[in-house]
Amino acid sequence: MAVTVLMAAGPGNWERYGAPLRTALARAGVAADLVQDAPAGMVDYIVYAPSSPLQDFTPYTRCKAVLSLWAGVERIVGNATLTQPLCRMVDPALTEGMVEWVTGHALRHHLGLDRYSQNPGHVWDPTCPPLARDRKVAMLGIGALGEACARMLQTLRFTVAGWSRSPKSLPGIPCHHGPEGLRAALADADIVVTLLPRTPETENILNAETFGWMKPGAVILNPGRGALIDDEALLQALRTGQVGHATLDVFRVEPLPAGHPFWDHPQVTVTPHIAADTRPDTSSEVIAENIRRGEAGEPFINQVDRTRGY
Amino acid sequence: MAVTVLMAAGPGNWERYGAPLRTALARAGVAADLVQDAPAGMVDYIVYAPSSPLQDFTPYTRCKAVLSLWAGVERIVGNATLTQPLCRMVDPALTEGMVEWVTGHALRHHLGLDRYSQNPGHVWDPTCPPLARDRKVAMLGIGALGEACARMLQTLRFTVAGWSRSPKSLPGIPCHHGPEGLRAALADADIVVTLLPRTPETENILNAETFGWMKPGAVILNPGRGALIDDEALLQALRTGQVGHATLDVFRVEPLPAGHPFWDHPQVTVTPHIAADTRPDTSSEVIAENIRRGEAGEPFINQVDRTRGY
Repeated sequence: MAVTVLMAAGPGNWERYGAPLRTALARAGVAADLVQDAPAGMVDYIVYAPSSPLQDFTPYTRCKAVLSLWAGVERIVGNATLTQPLCRMVDPALTEGMVEWVTGHALRHHLGLDRYSQNPGHVWDPTCPPLARDRKVAMLGIGALGEACARMLQTLRFTVAGWSRSPKSLPGIPCHHGPEGLRAALADADIVVTLLPRTPETENILNAETFGWMKPGAVILNPGRGALIDDEALLQALRTGQVGHATLDVFRVEPLPAGHPFWDHPQVTVTPHIAADTRPDTSSEVIAENIRRGEAGEPFINQVDRTRGY
Repeated sequence: MAVTVLMAAGPGNWERYGAPLRTALARAGVAADLVQDAPAGMVDYIVYAPSSPLQDFTPYTRCKAVLSLWAGVERIVGNATLTQPLCRMVDPALTEGMVEWVTGHALRHHLGLDRYSQNPGHVWDPTCPPLARDRKVAMLGIGALGEACARMLQTLRFTVAGWSRSPKSLPGIPCHHGPEGLRAALADADIVVTLLPRTPETENILNAETFGWMKPGAVILNPGRGALIDDEALLQALRTGQVGHATLDVFRVEPLPAGHPFWDHPQVTVTPHIAADTRPDTSSEVIAENIRRGEAGEPFINQVDRTRGY
C-alpha cells in the first residue's frame, strides 16, 4: 500500500522538489503518494521546511516522521506539538558546497588573494605567503559538516583543531571541548570557522570575552548560524584589530538589512547564505532513504536529539 | 674526505641557503665544504641558479652534478658547456605552495569570490554557484606539480583531465596527449591550468588557434611559464570574451613592466611569481640528498633529460 507523503515546505519547494522526490522514492522502492494537501490523519510522513504554514503537528497522529529539508532545525525543535521523530537534512551536496565555501574563503585569506585581485598601484611584491601547514584553523563545531571541512583543510595541510560543547573524538583531528577547551582552540587559531548548531548554549559564543581569547588579527568565517556571533562585539573587535576580518554567510536577519554596518565594512565580507544549499536531487535521495527505513522498521538517519536540540 | 660544494646562485642566495644547506648536508651524513668560491678543478658539486655569473661550466672537470635551485631549467639546459648531470629542484614545499595557489585561484573563480569581496551595491543574491563536480578543469602539464594540483582539485571533486605532449598514464586522471588530445582537453574545460615546462614545443601553446578551441568564457590559470601563452592573442581572446579571465603568475619579462596592458585589465589578475617558491629548508634537503646519492654512486633524483629539455 502506498504511503502518503505530505510536502509542507512553503512556497516554491513543491516545484523544486516534486519531481526529484518522486524519482528518488521510486528508486528506493517506496510506493508513495506525494501530495501538497491531505487529511492530517492520513499522512505517513511530512517533508518539512519552516517556511510552511504548518506549525501545529498535533493532528498528524499517524505520521511516522517529520523530515526537514534544512540542516538547521532550531525553528522547529522547540515546537511542543511536534512529538514525531524529527530528522535533519544531511545532504551530501550540502556538505560539498560547505566544504567548497570554507576551503575557498580560508584560501582567500591564507593566500591574500585580494592583494592581487585589487592592485591599482601595480605593486610587484614577490613575497610568498606562508604555507598552509604554518596556519592554524579552529573548527568550532565538528559534526558532519565541520568534520568534512576540517578534513579538507587538513588535506591542504592546514593545521586544524576542532571544538565541540561536549567531548568528541575524531581520528586525526585534535579535539577540544567545553569552555576551557574553547579558550585553547581560539588562542592558537589564525582562522576560526563557526559551524555550530544554534542552541541556547552556542548563541553569542563569539562575544567580547571570547574575541579577547583570540590571536590579534585572526580571521573569522561563519557559515553556521548568525546567532553564534555577537554582532556589536564583532564590530568592536574589528575596530581594535583584535579580529582581522570576518566573512559571514549567515545573519540574525536575512537578507542582511540595507544600512547594516556589515555591508560597507572593509573588514567584513558578506555572502548571501550560499555556503550550503540543499539541492533537490541529492536531498530527495536522503528523504526517500528515511521513508524506506521507516517502512522497513529500521532506525532513521540524522534523527534529531531533542535534549541537545540538533 | 670532504666534498667541495660550490654555491653559484647569484646575489642573496648565499645568505638564504648557507645555513640550511650545511644543516641538511650534516643530516644526510655528507662531509662537505660549502663555498662561494673555489678553483674550478676542485669543485665536486655546483648548487646553481641562473642569476649566477657562472655560465661556462667547461673548467669544472671534476664536478659530478649541477643541482638547480629552480624547478624550471630552460635558461641552462641549452648551455653547451654544461655536460655534467643536471638536476631540477622538486621541492616538496614548492609543490605545496603550487597546490595552494592553483586550488585557491580555481576556487576564487569557481565560487565567484570577487562578487562578494567587492559588492558596493550591497546585492543580496542567494544564487548558489554550481558544485565543483560540475566544473571541468584541464591540467596542461601533468608532471610532479601538475599531478599534485590535479589530485587536490579531484579531492574537491572538480572534474579534472590532464594533457601532456607525449602519452602519459596516471591512475584516476584521464590523460590526453599530443595536438589532437589538446583540442579535446581544451574543448571541455571551464578552467585551464598551464603547468608545462618551457620547451620549444610548449612555447605559445595557448595562442589564437588554441584559444579558439576553448569553451567561451573559460578561465586560465598560468603558474607555469610566461612563454606558454601568446600575450597578444590572450588580450584579443579576452576582448572577444572567448577567454573569461586569466590569472597569471609568470611573464615573459619579470617583474611585469609598468604600463603592460595586463596590469589594468579587469579580466586579468597578476600575481608576482609567487605560486611556487623554493624554500631554503626543504630544498636544501633535496640538494643534500642528491649529493649523498652522488657520493654513494646511486642515481640522482630529478635529473634532467636533455633531449626533452626538462
